[in-house]
Amino acid sequence: MNIAMICRILGLALGVEAAFMTPPFIIALVRGEHSAAVAFAAAITAILVCAVLLRRVKARRQKYYAGEGFVTVGLSWVLLSVFGALPLCLSGAVPSFVDAFFETVSGFTTTGASVIADVEALPMSLLYWRSFTIWLGGMGVLVFVLAVSPIANGDSGDALHLLRAESPGVNVGKLVPRMRRSTTILYLIYIGLTVLMFVLLLFDMPCFDALTTAFATAGTGGFSIRNIGMSAYSPYSQTVMTVFMVLFSMNFTIYYLVLIGKLRQALRSEEMWVFLGILAVASLFVAVNILPIFGSFGEAFRHAIFTAASIMSTSGFSISDFNLWPWASKTLLLMLMFIGACAGSTGGGIKIVRVIIGAKLARRGVQRAIHPQQIKCIHADGEPLDEDTCSSVSAFLLVYALLFAALVLLLALDGLDFITTFSAAASCFNNIGPGLELVGPMSNYMCFSSFGKLLLSFAMLFGRLELYPMLLLFIPAAWRK
Amino acid sequence: MNIAMICRILGLALGVEAAFMTPPFIIALVRGEHSAAVAFAAAITAILVCAVLLRRVKARRQKYYAGEGFVTVGLSWVLLSVFGALPLCLSGAVPSFVDAFFETVSGFTTTGASVIADVEALPMSLLYWRSFTIWLGGMGVLVFVLAVSPIANGDSGDALHLLRAESPGVNVGKLVPRMRRSTTILYLIYIGLTVLMFVLLLFDMPCFDALTTAFATAGTGGFSIRNIGMSAYSPYSQTVMTVFMVLFSMNFTIYYLVLIGKLRQALRSEEMWVFLGILAVASLFVAVNILPIFGSFGEAFRHAIFTAASIMSTSGFSISDFNLWPWASKTLLLMLMFIGACAGSTGGGIKIVRVIIGAKLARRGVQRAIHPQQIKCIHADGEPLDEDTCSSVSAFLLVYALLFAALVLLLALDGLDFITTFSAAASCFNNIGPGLELVGPMSNYMCFSSFGKLLLSFAMLFGRLELYPMLLLFIPAAWRK
Repeated sequence: MNIAMICRILGLALGVEAAFMTPPFIIALVRGEHSAAVAFAAAITAILVCAVLLRRVKARRQKYYAGEGFVTVGLSWVLLSVFGALPLCLSGAVPSFVDAFFETVSGFTTTGASVIADVEALPMSLLYWRSFTIWLGGMGVLVFVLAVSPIANGDSGDALHLLRAESPGVNVGKLVPRMRRSTTILYLIYIGLTVLMFVLLLFDMPCFDALTTAFATAGTGGFSIRNIGMSAYSPYSQTVMTVFMVLFSMNFTIYYLVLIGKLRQALRSEEMWVFLGILAVASLFVAVNILPIFGSFGEAFRHAIFTAASIMSTSGFSISDFNLWPWASKTLLLMLMFIGACAGSTGGGIKIVRVIIGAKLARRGVQRAIHPQQIKCIHADGEPLDEDTCSSVSAFLLVYALLFAALVLLLALDGLDFITTFSAAASCFNNIGPGLELVGPMSNYMCFSSFGKLLLSFAMLFGRLELYPMLLLFIPAAWRK
Repeated sequence: MNIAMICRILGLALGVEAAFMTPPFIIALVRGEHSAAVAFAAAITAILVCAVLLRRVKARRQKYYAGEGFVTVGLSWVLLSVFGALPLCLSGAVPSFVDAFFETVSGFTTTGASVIADVEALPMSLLYWRSFTIWLGGMGVLVFVLAVSPIANGDSGDALHLLRAESPGVNVGKLVPRMRRSTTILYLIYIGLTVLMFVLLLFDMPCFDALTTAFATAGTGGFSIRNIGMSAYSPYSQTVMTVFMVLFSMNFTIYYLVLIGKLRQALRSEEMWVFLGILAVASLFVAVNILPIFGSFGEAFRHAIFTAASIMSTSGFSISDFNLWPWASKTLLLMLMFIGACAGSTGGGIKIVRVIIGAKLARRGVQRAIHPQQIKCIHADGEPLDEDTCSSVSAFLLVYALLFAALVLLLALDGLDFITTFSAAASCFNNIGPGLELVGPMSNYMCFSSFGKLLLSFAMLFGRLELYPMLLLFIPAAWRK
């Protein structure tokens, strides 16, 4: 294990975090939020000291392996969350460190699960930081680091290990041959879409609301700065959010293809059509199911598609308390939690592409039962998939299922009812936010013990980083050479 | 598709069913249960007419393919259940045919889920038939047919397709080179263990209770002839049941190895040790968790191990209302439902061997993430497993997960709460019996609509036959040549 190299990259990541903490620090100073200003100053100082110490480590070896990439990413997310929690905790807004850690992890992992009952009581600087963590976590902190600084020997394949470990999806390639340009393009698309949304929301919302909502939607996290969530805003804003939740659930490569004029290739994405298909069918089903609650189909459909898009994009916003909807709708929403968004988006969950490959592998299994001698290849987007990718997808699904089962079992020790436990686990593991019953959209995660909250914090990290980077932190063999 | 051959085998299976309906018919005559006697007579006549018609079909081709084996097994189980439901329905004991079908499928698939609230009101002949369906379904009807009659060209490999399709587990081989002898040996072991249990129960129970309990335990179904279930009997009987539930959860090949003196080879079974290990850990956990309810550890452990063995063996007997236990225990029991018993036993569920292989594939997936170039082989019982078996196991698990998700979603249309829906689906799909909440151990499945009951009946058939034989019935491609 190349500890020295890992330390140096962690130092860089912390430096970036300190830089991004400056705007909320300035907000706190300008608005005279004293305790928050002191907390941000202390946090920035602590981060900088730590970053400088880590950067002073001398790396003897420059080479960097896949396993080290995973460990670096896992460690950096834990570290960024620990330091990111300092402002919340030190300012006294969230006195318990475990709670502040939960809230920060929930932000960085774009989950949006909260332990704060009265968000409107928070100072503006902390609200900004809370929403900004989602935006930063959506695309990935190390992806940002890769975009702005030459790590190790710059554009080498080594950096690809970091990108692979942090980005969601099956096969993250490079858009363009040069690694650094790829990540820059991704970030520019991300910034562009966020700004567009911000402008559209400005027509209807105060500036600060529009900014934090755009941050949270872009990262597909679900933090709101209003106690009643997104029902505080007009149907216009809610429609803008629905559209952008869908847009941020797509593979960003599609936008790149559109930008360089390859529209036909962009429209060939099987994953996009499956995502839109599931969303359409689920929205229709829920709309019909909740028709008696809303009276008109139009109103029911508006609530249904917002909620379905919110769950599938793993945002977790809510404009109505779906905990009160019929069980058929709630069961469907619970299932959608696992599916999640497209690979290469800012959304979480298993990802559509894995669900597609999993379904195709299942179908091949049935065909093989009928014709044991037949050899069939799985296709994705019209291209044949090699067996290595297939078996790595099914291995991922197995690891996912085993970890989820362990999570539910451990969380059950908290003694809460099965629906709360199961939906909280599903919601955090898939980076959504609200669950059902005690963790429904109109309540929060305060019902869990500190043990439960820590467990769920790690579940969010496991989910956001797609299991392996976090898993390797707990496997001694990964730390050996 | 060799329709003619399929018809001939279905005719044989129906003939066997008619023969096994004769003892309860005689009981009905002797005890003067008039309506039951008439019902059995009518059912036997209908079955025989149908069987004779099916046997008259002339088969032009003798050859038999794997796909046809699956379809034959799937069809025969549906047919046997439809005819097996006649006595319950025609006698007026269970007037609705859907209810009678549910109850019979529940018997044949060794589930033990019931829609009869007052079982003690049933005539003895029907109670006998109900418990006997479990015993017959435990080892498999076509396995019995194979043991007593030469199908097609007798000991050919063709018959192996039938055995493979009906028997649970990963790779069902032959114990001895001759197919018919293998199935006979299996059935003799099954009969021997059942008789032994019957004798041990006789010390404590009335003869009829001992017989029906032995039938139900051997097949790992959960039917009881007492309204209060197994809490009607003494701790001695409950302990005998615990031991035999465990024995019937083992791969029967182990007993064969013991019988021919290969004790050392029998003890090498990885699956057996994993099963016993999970059982021990789960029982201890539950015992500690329910200690406050029972006061003494001994009493708590007795209830815990009975319940854990009952769930893992997929029997579904109960001596206490575990629906009232703490959520941590209930969540664990819900998880155990999916794992199930060993392959080659009479138990259901995913099966320990698949869980082991799945876990090893997951571990390999993680290792490959660290060392992408490494090629590692999975071992089972010390022998290397070929990649075909590995990918067929992961395909099975994927099919299982997709079908289970579809089942929960469809069942949710009935509008019952998530815990009832989820646990009923898990319980029926894994052939256990009781679930939680409305379908807890002290209640029954009457809360579901006819649609729900039919859906659960097919879920039981899918589960018992390990998905493919039932799935192929719904896939048009399987019916083509």
